[in-house]
Amino acid sequence: MINREQYIQAQQKTVDYMARAGIVLTPDEAQNIEVADFGLNRLHEIGLEIVVYVNTDRVCAKELVLFPGQICPEHRHPPVLDEPGKEETFRCRWGQVFLYIPGEASPQPAASLPRDKVDTFTVWREIILHPGDQYTLQPDTLHWFQGGPDGAVVSEFSTTSRDDADIFTDPEIHRITHLAESPAKNT
Amino acid sequence: MINREQYIQAQQKTVDYMARAGIVLTPDEAQNIEVADFGLNRLHEIGLEIVVYVNTDRVCAKELVLFPGQICPEHRHPPVLDEPGKEETFRCRWGQVFLYIPGEASPQPAASLPRDKVDTFTVWREIILHPGDQYTLQPDTLHWFQGGPDGAVVSEFSTTSRDDADIFTDPEIHRITHLAESPAKNT
Repeated sequence: MINREQYIQAQQKTVDYMARAGIVLTPDEAQNIEVADFGLNRLHEIGLEIVVYVNTDRVCAKELVLFPGQICPEHRHPPVLDEPGKEETFRCRWGQVFLYIPGEASPQPAASLPRDKVDTFTVWREIILHPGDQYTLQPDTLHWFQGGPDGAVVSEFSTTSRDDADIFTDPEIHRITHLAESPAKNT
Repeated sequence: MINREQYIQAQQKTVDYMARAGIVLTPDEAQNIEVADFGLNRLHEIGLEIVVYVNTDRVCAKELVLFPGQICPEHRHPPVLDEPGKEETFRCRWGQVFLYIPGEASPQPAASLPRDKVDTFTVWREIILHPGDQYTLQPDTLHWFQGGPDGAVVSEFSTTSRDDADIFTDPEIHRITHLAESPAKNT
């Protein structure tokens, strides 16, 4: 668990990245940026910063920020009720993002992983997105992504987001961030 | 009908507006910007410039540009087959947009209309969007919008777009732009 101070610092950093991408947030949106540490308390390696613009029972749109080298860990969006699972398009707005999906593994992937977590990343077909590039993921497709050396700002256009339905490869992950009351260890 | 030269000029102007909003387009996207004159051949008064990022059978995302004072005319998105009609969220990225929906009419609306078309605008509840502001329209809701004095760049997040199903209040409107072979009259 990260603590409140780390959470707020990450929110402020996210606002800076949004500004670099020319993206204007309202004060309310800036205050409500979601910082996901996936319950691992190593935010600068594995984490994601999120602004949800809209999430109805039909459509969702978000802005994602990845700090330099920050990883959104491998997961998929399974079918829920009678729906085929979340379909999502990632569009890079600023920086660079390394996206990995099932398929022929890249012989020299651009991403680097923390050694103790290598086993929790299983798909290695690489798609590198620069500003203006985008990729649409079909429902229930395993994927993960990492911010490039300068980080990244990525728009996500999708069907309804149901974070609690996501299935992560790493069994240690908890999608919903809980804050520690006491200072957390350095990450 | 506008002619090819007018179409290309409007595309180039759209690229400039996108750049002001910090939005990066690929060369392909820039070349394929849709310029909608709604068949009226008065693009600088009534028209819309559109980049479609994704439009699947579940989700759609677009960037819209309105030149200063340019109007997207009144229309609605009716149910299609077994679906309740397009649900859409407009998020202002740059400039200012005057949006009008059903409800109590604004006593002093910011928008101005060409006199001969006033009768084709029937809803007058005003919502002014500045950068960072957004509004979600329920399906089948009449609406129209106008770019502010500097124009506007607006993201649209929605369910599937089916332009040919749109119903416009103005019977003279044709949603799909056809180009004139000969030079068009000045607009």
